[in-house]
Amino acid sequence: MAELNVVELIVAKRDGGKLEPSQIRALISEYTNGSVPDYQMSAFLMAAFFRGLDETETFALTESMLESGIIVDLSGVPGTKVDKHSTGGVGDKISLILAPVVASCGVPVPMISGRGLGFTGGTLDKLESITGFRTSMSTDEYRRQVAEIGVVMIGQTDEIAPADRALYALRDVTGTVEFIPFIASSIMSKKLAEGIDALVLDVKCGRGAFMKEEPLARRLAETLVEIGDRFGKRTVAWMTRMDEPIGRAVGNWPEVVESLSCLRGEDVPDVTELVVTLSGEMIHLGGKAESAAEGAEKAAAALKSGQAYEKFLEIVRVQGGDVSLLHDPAVREGYEPAAVVKAVRSGFIAGIDALEVARTATAMGAGRLRKEDKVDPLAGITLQKKGGYAIRAGETLAHLFTTRTDELARFEAAVRGAFLVTDEPPVRSETVLLDRFEAGAWSGDAR
Amino acid sequence: MAELNVVELIVAKRDGGKLEPSQIRALISEYTNGSVPDYQMSAFLMAAFFRGLDETETFALTESMLESGIIVDLSGVPGTKVDKHSTGGVGDKISLILAPVVASCGVPVPMISGRGLGFTGGTLDKLESITGFRTSMSTDEYRRQVAEIGVVMIGQTDEIAPADRALYALRDVTGTVEFIPFIASSIMSKKLAEGIDALVLDVKCGRGAFMKEEPLARRLAETLVEIGDRFGKRTVAWMTRMDEPIGRAVGNWPEVVESLSCLRGEDVPDVTELVVTLSGEMIHLGGKAESAAEGAEKAAAALKSGQAYEKFLEIVRVQGGDVSLLHDPAVREGYEPAAVVKAVRSGFIAGIDALEVARTATAMGAGRLRKEDKVDPLAGITLQKKGGYAIRAGETLAHLFTTRTDELARFEAAVRGAFLVTDEPPVRSETVLLDRFEAGAWSGDAR
Repeated sequence: MAELNVVELIVAKRDGGKLEPSQIRALISEYTNGSVPDYQMSAFLMAAFFRGLDETETFALTESMLESGIIVDLSGVPGTKVDKHSTGGVGDKISLILAPVVASCGVPVPMISGRGLGFTGGTLDKLESITGFRTSMSTDEYRRQVAEIGVVMIGQTDEIAPADRALYALRDVTGTVEFIPFIASSIMSKKLAEGIDALVLDVKCGRGAFMKEEPLARRLAETLVEIGDRFGKRTVAWMTRMDEPIGRAVGNWPEVVESLSCLRGEDVPDVTELVVTLSGEMIHLGGKAESAAEGAEKAAAALKSGQAYEKFLEIVRVQGGDVSLLHDPAVREGYEPAAVVKAVRSGFIAGIDALEVARTATAMGAGRLRKEDKVDPLAGITLQKKGGYAIRAGETLAHLFTTRTDELARFEAAVRGAFLVTDEPPVRSETVLLDRFEAGAWSGDAR
Repeated sequence: MAELNVVELIVAKRDGGKLEPSQIRALISEYTNGSVPDYQMSAFLMAAFFRGLDETETFALTESMLESGIIVDLSGVPGTKVDKHSTGGVGDKISLILAPVVASCGVPVPMISGRGLGFTGGTLDKLESITGFRTSMSTDEYRRQVAEIGVVMIGQTDEIAPADRALYALRDVTGTVEFIPFIASSIMSKKLAEGIDALVLDVKCGRGAFMKEEPLARRLAETLVEIGDRFGKRTVAWMTRMDEPIGRAVGNWPEVVESLSCLRGEDVPDVTELVVTLSGEMIHLGGKAESAAEGAEKAAAALKSGQAYEKFLEIVRVQGGDVSLLHDPAVREGYEPAAVVKAVRSGFIAGIDALEVARTATAMGAGRLRKEDKVDPLAGITLQKKGGYAIRAGETLAHLFTTRTDELARFEAAVRGAFLVTDEPPVRSETVLLDRFEAGAWSGDAR
């Protein structure tokens, strides 16, 4: 093709023009190979932020990022491979439970996850709180494990979507993060590289989510589903509420403990609902149920019967984790509450601020503010009460797990402050499910 | 001050916020010292392009750029120092004539000019077509020459507004050139560094100008005048028509030849009007006339009497130029038309496309497309007919001066094509003056 004139391309977008897929592909490929400098790409990103990217442009962007790296070929593995992705929440341990549930129902789950950053946790950190659990392996090992036990849970490798990695880092420092076509193409380029046939997305919405407002979350869900569809992957997205932490536990080992409760059939608030709903979609997309509803029944049965729990133990065993820790997970050396947070007044819990809980858990060692920070696997918060319930002064609200005991008073105050206690019983929704999206909902300009 | 959070600043502007002068100063100073990388600055520039910069922000930007370098102190030189700046036109040799006119009327003119790039010529290139003319000197020499002969004409030094140089280069490759607050702050930061007390601006408007549309040119004129006012410099701007080349000559030596005609009292179309008007403003601002009109009379008298011509010879002599070339400038070795362009049809010249003439002159060697290109001092075009006049087939339209004779057919066709010939006599304005601006015309958001 002709030499890329980057300035013309920036000006075209700046002035409201629509770029050809070939122009976007050239831009991304020249950026990835270093021919287009960061300062031109950041001007383009900002111009696109203001002018928007339409469906075709967003698709071309996703495709360019996807094709910047390897695309794992799982065609040799029998079955319809399905993965789930969440846009990131507080206490979001759904993957840990859902992957074995779905795999135990006969649908292969090749899952590539990320680490926690800022207020959101990461599946990898949670898995690695199980001593010995390996989250990094070669593409061959990854493929072999899906074939052998129907599920694998690893971290992103450098070979997947390098353009996304470079662009993400640039967006982070140039004020161009909060733009739906960029967010959607970043997510989808990575997921599409996994070798999946279908995808279920959990788009979080609320104060503990990246998307705080429903219209934006809705737009993101629509965009994600449409991109999946364009790539010939059956894609379903759920928009779900993320105001209060999911379940009771926030922190890596605390969330594994809670996941094991759910896997053993206990009905954990929010968690079981999300697992059953999203697994149901996956089981249906994977061809092992006639409908998502039938899939959800199978998922619930897999939790009840213990088959999902057994599959989880198998994953841990195969990936080198210490299974002995899992039999009585609440009992573990060093895993003792450093403090108990008690209510100072009686009333009703109208809500629990997920963002405040997450920030406090991060400060307690459970998360990281910078990529290079280390996390304390045992640190975290367990909420003894959830929103909607009555509370009496003196009752326990939460347990705090941390080694940073010199700051305990601050942590206690923050967690207590995260509980909104009212005199009247609050009006609350019984469900965290907000809306469901399938392909065909694309609404033109994706911004 | 607190550590600069550049991302917050970019996001604030992106979301329509107004930045504090201290934030803009910090941004520019950290950018100039290399702490803020190009990729963040280009994201900021694009966000500002979309959201605009208001009066206070534009002022702070200009100030930051001005203060990034030296500000020449001419307070030791008696008199009110006045300069002129043009936003760039085709055949714009006004400075060559105006500087000696104004100086000969007793107003000191410390003039720092640029080189030609793209379709606009540069005063430095024109002066340097006089063999030996030196356009680079130290700040001390510069100051001394203003004191001694009341006028100096040099090129920009590296010490003046380095932030502008860096920003200009970045804007050029990131699609953020065409934005009035950036254009205005770039111009004013350089002019204010010259040590002037007052300034006259010639804002060109039309197809041969950077600003092609009148509302934009008007906005630029207003912004320039307001910035000058804020810095306590009396500033007047004229918006002038730039559709047809100014005068008859385009190219470096051809324009010197034409300037000498004007300096000897010949009435050169457009040129004399611009020189007299702008010089009149300068003579008034410099305190040597009661009004701009009286200043214009003095300027016209200086042309008629030969005192301006003598002053020009003095400048050339002091700055090392070969004065012997100037006595009969049309006669110079190598300065012979390589081709004569003749009309192929009879009619009236409705207009001459300045942009087409400029591009052809550049292709003929008179200008440069890239900074590192060399110019041919003798190359250029002289128009034998101007717009508004009748023409008969076979009459001469233009002379072409070039050594690139293998492309002559193309140059001839282009210049002939630049003449719009109609059957009916065109309705044309007698003047190139469009509007005049003084401080107080600021209209809020400067975009």
